[in-house]
Amino acid sequence: MSDYETVSADVEHEDEIPADHPRYQDLLTRHRIEKGVEKGITHLQGMHAEGRGSAFDYLLGEETIPSADAAERAAAAHLLLADHPVLSINGNVAALVPAEMVELADVVDADLEVNLFNRTPERLEAIADHLRGHGADEVKGLEADARIPNLDHQRAKVDEDGIYAADVVLVPLEDGDRAEALEEMGKTEIVIDLNPLSRSPRVADVPIVDNIVRAVPNTTAHARNLADASEAELEVIVEEFDRERALEAAEERIRTGL
Amino acid sequence: MSDYETVSADVEHEDEIPADHPRYQDLLTRHRIEKGVEKGITHLQGMHAEGRGSAFDYLLGEETIPSADAAERAAAAHLLLADHPVLSINGNVAALVPAEMVELADVVDADLEVNLFNRTPERLEAIADHLRGHGADEVKGLEADARIPNLDHQRAKVDEDGIYAADVVLVPLEDGDRAEALEEMGKTEIVIDLNPLSRSPRVADVPIVDNIVRAVPNTTAHARNLADASEAELEVIVEEFDRERALEAAEERIRTGL
Repeated sequence: MSDYETVSADVEHEDEIPADHPRYQDLLTRHRIEKGVEKGITHLQGMHAEGRGSAFDYLLGEETIPSADAAERAAAAHLLLADHPVLSINGNVAALVPAEMVELADVVDADLEVNLFNRTPERLEAIADHLRGHGADEVKGLEADARIPNLDHQRAKVDEDGIYAADVVLVPLEDGDRAEALEEMGKTEIVIDLNPLSRSPRVADVPIVDNIVRAVPNTTAHARNLADASEAELEVIVEEFDRERALEAAEERIRTGL
Repeated sequence: MSDYETVSADVEHEDEIPADHPRYQDLLTRHRIEKGVEKGITHLQGMHAEGRGSAFDYLLGEETIPSADAAERAAAAHLLLADHPVLSINGNVAALVPAEMVELADVVDADLEVNLFNRTPERLEAIADHLRGHGADEVKGLEADARIPNLDHQRAKVDEDGIYAADVVLVPLEDGDRAEALEEMGKTEIVIDLNPLSRSPRVADVPIVDNIVRAVPNTTAHARNLADASEAELEVIVEEFDRERALEAAEERIRTGL
């Protein structure tokens, strides 16, 4: 609760954060979220969520544990096998890994769709612009001509030819209600979340318990390595992934790795 | 990292948060910090720090564990025995427990002193006003006519008749450098922090590993109960408190209580 005052991320540009700083990744993450708030991309609550995540990451040892790497490989296989994969983007995702999400979408041929809890036209536009500035050609989620069943609020709003029609969805840092509602629609759901006990990873087909700044590039790397794999080979990877074991391994690391 | 979107603390006034909500305390805390940011009391990084703290609180079970209660009792005894106790206030402390800090200061006859990492005249004034609005008569830290040795930045600035002269200081949510520098000055230091592994509680004479919203009122309650205790009785309480055991117990709870 106090560490934020020990090292300041108070720089104008992220290049000013020394890459050899022992807490480089944490500083970079915080800096990007803070800039996201300033730009109107990230809700103030996103700063809180990121702080919460950073504590779990600290307990995980701030590294991709083997079970998370396996989950990222399975996620890549799912995305490559999908007919219509969609990557969901909220304010924290856009602030933290805009270029990385664009790149993953490119490698697995997925759509990008903005979806916000605190949905305002201004935030939607700011996020879409931010993604376009990082190389996105098309950004879905602005039309919002379909609804996820069994979900109220603004969270139900999706594009009919985007998340609504998707067979595989990557929903990083997703809230539990929405993760559950997407699961009930029969979609294959990949969740990235640092708390293995929260509802979103627990309902996911592929729970990735890892920091999004490591998880997305690593999923992309796996997708690149699997580009020439056959459908049968990809299906073996999907079948062999054990979601329960992944959740248990993350919990175990948090407990004993402290 | 995702839970912030599950329940919204997006209410105008904290009275609107239902007291029987299973996550009432977390919602209330987040709401107060968010209002603090809006009022210019809390730095944006404070929202991040609070999120980080909330994860550790979650792992602790969101309750005052017995070793924390013992630390709060020892803290009360130290404050009652002190010649010149001072309670240090930063942006998060002011946002989260303004009335509670004023009340504790009243019960143990301590000074309140504002001390900020991101120190600006506007924030100092906003926090002093906020404390006065919650019943504080005098707020120190605005004069800043003394310096803590071996500490750069704005953090070294203190009042000569405040923290500089204090024999016992309560520094909640304090950064490690400052906690260490105060310790080196020979002061008896009481730290409130949810991460038992961070530097501040580890250098403190009395590390309180508890949420500040529970720790401060409970310390006040102990001080009230000890109001008629003799100096010898208070000294026994101080002597019997085992700081190492308190840190170990908190770490053990985080590990196994998950």
